[in-house]
Amino acid sequence: MGGSLALALRASAARGGPAQRLIGVSRSQETLAAATAAGAVDATCTNLADGVAEADLVVLATPARAILRQLPLVGQAARPGAIVLDLGSTKAQICAALDALPPALQPIGGHPMCGKETAGFAAAEAGLFRAKTFVLCPLPRTTAQTLASAQELVQALGARPLTLTPQAHDRAVAAISHLPYAAAASLVAALDAVEGETSLAWQLAASGFRDTSRLAASDVDMMLDILMTNPHAIIDWLDRYTDQLGRLRQLLAAADEAGLRDHLTTIQARRARWHAAA
Amino acid sequence: MGGSLALALRASAARGGPAQRLIGVSRSQETLAAATAAGAVDATCTNLADGVAEADLVVLATPARAILRQLPLVGQAARPGAIVLDLGSTKAQICAALDALPPALQPIGGHPMCGKETAGFAAAEAGLFRAKTFVLCPLPRTTAQTLASAQELVQALGARPLTLTPQAHDRAVAAISHLPYAAAASLVAALDAVEGETSLAWQLAASGFRDTSRLAASDVDMMLDILMTNPHAIIDWLDRYTDQLGRLRQLLAAADEAGLRDHLTTIQARRARWHAAA
Repeated sequence: MGGSLALALRASAARGGPAQRLIGVSRSQETLAAATAAGAVDATCTNLADGVAEADLVVLATPARAILRQLPLVGQAARPGAIVLDLGSTKAQICAALDALPPALQPIGGHPMCGKETAGFAAAEAGLFRAKTFVLCPLPRTTAQTLASAQELVQALGARPLTLTPQAHDRAVAAISHLPYAAAASLVAALDAVEGETSLAWQLAASGFRDTSRLAASDVDMMLDILMTNPHAIIDWLDRYTDQLGRLRQLLAAADEAGLRDHLTTIQARRARWHAAA
Repeated sequence: MGGSLALALRASAARGGPAQRLIGVSRSQETLAAATAAGAVDATCTNLADGVAEADLVVLATPARAILRQLPLVGQAARPGAIVLDLGSTKAQICAALDALPPALQPIGGHPMCGKETAGFAAAEAGLFRAKTFVLCPLPRTTAQTLASAQELVQALGARPLTLTPQAHDRAVAAISHLPYAAAASLVAALDAVEGETSLAWQLAASGFRDTSRLAASDVDMMLDILMTNPHAIIDWLDRYTDQLGRLRQLLAAADEAGLRDHLTTIQARRARWHAAA
């Protein structure tokens, strides 16, 4: 994500974009060498404190819990007036940590809605953010000027800024991303339960199962980072989901064909409407 | 499905396949005209009894509950010795009805594992069955010769015959097809529950949600036919699924990262293994 950001900012800088000098910070010399070779950055640094010391804008593009660990160091090292933006997948815990930064810094939360399943600079692409929604979560202390700067940055990436509270963000991504992951993983787990039948079932498996279970293949470290920083919203949606499965079960057990038809037709129409709107 | 079967059998007949003369039966004159124009059938008929009277092999390619309604008519009209094969999506109820056919007939259940989401002859394709699993459910009364004839037919279509009991078939398709439908539909329903949040969530919707909910777009009539003829197996898998969601909820609520990591890593590996085997 950081590599794609650098490439996108570099491309926009040529068109007069906001970031004219880019410093790449990573623990990995390989990543920094690759970023330099690709012309993505002007300078590199393996030390976070040194890397952020001169920056007008610090962008943290690590997993959510790494961001939580890095923020106190950024607070000590960044120069007064610097904007601190993160790209973490969940926002409530991170925005609370952003709020604890020294008053001279300008924090704002961010989350570009463009999943990147492959890590490392080799997977970076300048067009990753294009036409994607980029959520910004200003804190009560975030100034209008900082929000405007962040929006300008988002637009320079070709993304569409959307301002949300951290809580609204976390509820929404729990619904459309974390709950589907939980649903897919539990589907695979349910079929796990009967090993003998599963290999048979898989012989028969249609594309429907493959699609519905695809998210179960997600990177576990990435998902743990998300699950451990957004448990309450996910649990709430899981409960709603379980209620809906129970409702379907009840209609099935009652052989209530008219009720099933109503229920499933409404669902089908809703999904078609969402699909058309997306 | 019937149109695709006729086209596939026609193509195999030119290579010496088993079905040299094909009679198309449909209530729809348009369907029959299209099948005739495509050279898929030698003769057509809108009346089921007349259509099956001369046949050595009767193939019923309607939805499951239409098959249940048609079987008594086929029992009266088919000539002694005729094989009766159906292509219904669920097998236990249909195999019970096949078993009630007159003793002079040779019944066997079938289910080609190749979903066709579009109906009508315009959507028919000769290659639909190629390399797909085609389940055959012989009854206790089915002779070895009838099973061999059905297997020959399946191979003429380019499909791979797999013999299962009706109960094993219904359990397996409930797991890999009907449960994923229930999971996808309930996912859409869960997001339904909060209309205001949903439009927001959908603005953010990633491809993960789209894949996981795709089956909720399935044709409701087709799915009702399946749900109403396979409720017990589906309810059993729904209960296992709900148990798994509950297990995930418990790990999340306990913030048990090690437990979550174990659980999700096992699931990820299992899906990867199935995916590689499929």
